[in-house]
Amino acid sequence: MKKVILDCDPGHDDAFAIMLAAKHLDVLGITTIGGNGTLENVSSNALKVLEVIDRGEIPVYAGHEGPLVNPLVTAPQFHGETGMDGPILPEPTIKLQEQHAVDFIVETVLANKEITLIATGPLTNIASAINKNPQILENIKEICIMGGSVTFGNWTPAAEFNIYVDPEAASKVFNSGALVKMTGVNLTRQCIITEKELKDFQDINTKASIFAAELVDYFIGATLKSANVHGANLHDACAVAWIINPELIKSVPMHIDIELHGELTRGMTVCDYRHLRGSEPGVDLTRTPTMDYRGKEPNAEAALELDFEGFLDLLNDTLRDYN
Amino acid sequence: MKKVILDCDPGHDDAFAIMLAAKHLDVLGITTIGGNGTLENVSSNALKVLEVIDRGEIPVYAGHEGPLVNPLVTAPQFHGETGMDGPILPEPTIKLQEQHAVDFIVETVLANKEITLIATGPLTNIASAINKNPQILENIKEICIMGGSVTFGNWTPAAEFNIYVDPEAASKVFNSGALVKMTGVNLTRQCIITEKELKDFQDINTKASIFAAELVDYFIGATLKSANVHGANLHDACAVAWIINPELIKSVPMHIDIELHGELTRGMTVCDYRHLRGSEPGVDLTRTPTMDYRGKEPNAEAALELDFEGFLDLLNDTLRDYN
Amino acid sequence: MKKVILDCDPGHDDAFAIMLAAKHLDVLGITTIGGNGTLENVSSNALKVLEVIDRGEIPVYAGHEGPLVNPLVTAPQFHGETGMDGPILPEPTIKLQEQHAVDFIVETVLANKEITLIATGPLTNIASAINKNPQILENIKEICIMGGSVTFGNWTPAAEFNIYVDPEAASKVFNSGALVKMTGVNLTRQCIITEKELKDFQDINTKASIFAAELVDYFIGATLKSANVHGANLHDACAVAWIINPELIKSVPMHIDIELHGELTRGMTVCDYRHLRGSEPGVDLTRTPTMDYRGKEPNAEAALELDFEGFLDLLNDTLRDYN
Amino acid sequence: MKKVILDCDPGHDDAFAIMLAAKHLDVLGITTIGGNGTLENVSSNALKVLEVIDRGEIPVYAGHEGPLVNPLVTAPQFHGETGMDGPILPEPTIKLQEQHAVDFIVETVLANKEITLIATGPLTNIASAINKNPQILENIKEICIMGGSVTFGNWTPAAEFNIYVDPEAASKVFNSGALVKMTGVNLTRQCIITEKELKDFQDINTKASIFAAELVDYFIGATLKSANVHGANLHDACAVAWIINPELIKSVPMHIDIELHGELTRGMTVCDYRHLRGSEPGVDLTRTPTMDYRGKEPNAEAALELDFEGFLDLLNDTLRDYN
Repeated sequence: MKKVILDCDPGHDDAFAIMLAAKHLDVLGITTIGGNGTLENVSSNALKVLEVIDRGEIPVYAGHEGPLVNPLVTAPQFHGETGMDGPILPEPTIKLQEQHAVDFIVETVLANKEITLIATGPLTNIASAINKNPQILENIKEICIMGGSVTFGNWTPAAEFNIYVDPEAASKVFNSGALVKMTGVNLTRQCIITEKELKDFQDINTKASIFAAELVDYFIGATLKSANVHGANLHDACAVAWIINPELIKSVPMHIDIELHGELTRGMTVCDYRHLRGSEPGVDLTRTPTMDYRGKEPNAEAALELDFEGFLDLLNDTLRDYN
Repeated sequence: MKKVILDCDPGHDDAFAIMLAAKHLDVLGITTIGGNGTLENVSSNALKVLEVIDRGEIPVYAGHEGPLVNPLVTAPQFHGETGMDGPILPEPTIKLQEQHAVDFIVETVLANKEITLIATGPLTNIASAINKNPQILENIKEICIMGGSVTFGNWTPAAEFNIYVDPEAASKVFNSGALVKMTGVNLTRQCIITEKELKDFQDINTKASIFAAELVDYFIGATLKSANVHGANLHDACAVAWIINPELIKSVPMHIDIELHGELTRGMTVCDYRHLRGSEPGVDLTRTPTMDYRGKEPNAEAALELDFEGFLDLLNDTLRDYN
Repeated sequence: MKKVILDCDPGHDDAFAIMLAAKHLDVLGITTIGGNGTLENVSSNALKVLEVIDRGEIPVYAGHEGPLVNPLVTAPQFHGETGMDGPILPEPTIKLQEQHAVDFIVETVLANKEITLIATGPLTNIASAINKNPQILENIKEICIMGGSVTFGNWTPAAEFNIYVDPEAASKVFNSGALVKMTGVNLTRQCIITEKELKDFQDINTKASIFAAELVDYFIGATLKSANVHGANLHDACAVAWIINPELIKSVPMHIDIELHGELTRGMTVCDYRHLRGSEPGVDLTRTPTMDYRGKEPNAEAALELDFEGFLDLLNDTLRDYN
Repeated sequence: MKKVILDCDPGHDDAFAIMLAAKHLDVLGITTIGGNGTLENVSSNALKVLEVIDRGEIPVYAGHEGPLVNPLVTAPQFHGETGMDGPILPEPTIKLQEQHAVDFIVETVLANKEITLIATGPLTNIASAINKNPQILENIKEICIMGGSVTFGNWTPAAEFNIYVDPEAASKVFNSGALVKMTGVNLTRQCIITEKELKDFQDINTKASIFAAELVDYFIGATLKSANVHGANLHDACAVAWIINPELIKSVPMHIDIELHGELTRGMTVCDYRHLRGSEPGVDLTRTPTMDYRGKEPNAEAALELDFEGFLDLLNDTLRDYN
């Protein structure tokens, strides 16, 4: 199994990311970061998810409370006051590790030959680990993130939430030289859980699937109320699914950088789509051929197309297996 | 016929814009702006096009040499040294008007009840006219531009050429309160002229169609050399075609603003796509319903889909009619 | 007498600028710009000042209502609702010219060999004139402005009001190639009119001096109320005084550019003081010698020190002469 | 003696900072940061200085190699290839601590009631410590920095070197809620060591004073060559001197923030001088009274005036005492 560290801010969709990762990947540790909710809440939520799936042996490390430079922005309109409203869970009996998330990441990456970082929240912990010891870059196979977008934003017209919260950290990560696999909101909007899938979770009827059903029940409601959209996106689960099974997502190499200074575009993942002329969204592929690469060399692999049925199969199988 | 002023910087594709407009619209005047080439060149080119189609009675007014704030950037790699390389044409015998383009625009708009401005170059003249006399906004029915993009840029990863050249002018226009119809590069990339269409032009065999064939012959070559793409986009012609026949283009209302201050995104048309959730490029429309509008009220109508066959019919008929 | 055009936004201190200029310079015209007050108000105020001093033959041309890009900001807390509160004056019987200020500037500069532009408001008209016809730069001897600062701002910590209102126009002017003489707020803060000078104006007892006294009476009160400072600065009068008698102000050559994109510094005049090492404000001149020039070549002459007594003599003599 | 941590990037002037601090303050540790030179060099230089003054018991901790977001910029034109060219010193026999500087800072501050941080390089380590554990802010008495300027820059027209290198870190520190005492380049330019002071060092004739003489001999030469200025500024020593004897520097409370987004002003310490009206540099203090505070509440104490003679007495006494 692939060795990974999962850096997250649970968060309803992060809970699915944890459940997928804990079953199919060798999770060396989970690190938490203030994002969807406060650090205190998201750390507690990570522990709760592990208790639900009976995987308390996976160590959890709390990281940064907020971004490198700006104050923290959270998203209570989607995730509620606890950051994971919906399921009623007892206080976790397993405990956070004493070590800081950044120190765990640095130490663990240095001690392992090839490791994948999966980050489903703001990239503050990852950037800080790189800053603290740039040598970790030699052992990082790839950094697979949920964040950004190749086309449009969700938090602002141009920026997606995770990148918007800490653009400076994102800039550090995208410019680090590591390969970044970007599961942007353009991809995760294809992963829409509705009442139909909720019912499937209920029918599976394991402890994990009931938990999953309760999560999406709340999340669907919050999404409808906040965004008037029917169906909730399991954004973070997509990033994990991509590492579990690369076939689930089609992607292209691309140069991606972060706009730090714009008035309307701060936190935007600026994707250089120019070498893909002919496959831009909305353009008829049959009429223009691909062009040569025009700008900087690709530093990222941008997810474009999700095999949603394949994703659902993976997810349902996983929930079934957590009996 | 609709009364229009055509503000342009010919430019190969501007030449098509002129030919379409002069046949199907009541062109009160053509104004020129430094953009694809220098003001001197584009003004001369406008006169030459009018001579080819024998429409020397349409007055041409030279406008600004360059942008409101920044130095001028031109695009010789696509349009050659003259700004309209390819056809060998004599020096025009018709002359430029003495009046400055901005003064012509202000005077003409004030003197007419309802007028459409079509702008296929940088928006400097239009912005200056609004600045000089904001009352013209009461008589402007709409400003139909070729420029910007709802998704990706061409001159930089995020910015399209015409807006990139004078972002401040674009900001003035988009924030003026006038309805802006935006024919962005996302739309005009659907308008691809290849050897096949070139041959059709030759077969039509009018003076205008031979001129058109010579233009695209050069333009196809330059595009192949500069961008390694087979086929040239008649960007500017799309904006005129939209005014001639609104059925040729599908569009959506959208709030669009211009990023002036970004490091990577200066000159980007920042489109708020969030109310169109479910119809984002690449998202499966059958699974998400439309959401309510989330940001600022729409100030623009963004072109999304071109009826390319319909466009070609219009263009070929037009070239045939200029016998 | 030197030929000048005075571009202003009266404004209490602009009134003094007009009175000084009309007596000692060959004022070819006064042009107005929205700034301290709305264009309508400042234009009316310019006419009123000319009536008080019986110089109705000087033509007044209204210019831009507001800045090139941004909405207009005015300063009613210092100048009152009319832009020149205090003196009660009848509606002026002399009228504005029909011609737009920008057209007057272009035409007049082209028709004269050597001309000085004095600008005591936002630089919108000057920038637009340069944009409309860059050839005017050949005939402009210098552009003497009240605006900016070599050290600190007044409207924001970093920006002075006139530049803050239209930074894009200021950028155009400072980068035009013309010599800019900058009478910044660092200089004009040395020109402080208090009750003592007010009393001197009253004692002179001409129509002009009584008008002057009424102006500063209001202006001192507004400054005390708005900024808790005793004494009002005759900012704009300094720029005119410098042209009348260059000996009144000590200055240094400097490269000055305008920050357009900062979050905290937009509208700042960024002065390169590095070649003046040893004469920085607060540094002991006896210990460090001057260094060579380090950055870009100077494009401006920055006013540093006012001969306030000499200024007062000039002003009092002028008010006395308007009998 | 006051408990301090000295965060530095030696650097010629940092060496003086170390010598002053080690004699007069309770230095709990020295932390190093990439700045004047690379982290490797500045760490080695710190050890060398401690060996010269026989204070090898003070622990030295290496910190960040470079800034939070941007690549590192160093200043070899002033400090040479080693970062402290001039004196020929053996490789140090004392060793760096294993612990990372940031961890040392966090741990040490948490373990002490009241502590002063002195930072004479880029603020990366301090910002990272605050990010890693914001609780340290409760125990930090003050952060005394060499960096920034209340008036003019040195590295760019608007920005001083230390802040320019890591503006994001500076922003974090100035907005942390901690009291920042800023010894900006406006102050340290008053601390000019020339041949005369060099000779005094030689005459003192201790191991430390000879080292000091060799340092300034090189530094004076490099400054002359790079900036054509006679005399070198002991920038960093001023910050330490201020903590040793507050009487040596006159200062004022001020709100200071960092411009992160400007094109010409990135890294500028934007000082709100408006409440000090009447004491602006160059304004006649006898004519304007002080005004009320206008902007945000002061978060910093800005050094304005150095008692240079007092500073020299302190320095010479110190060098003499290191016999």
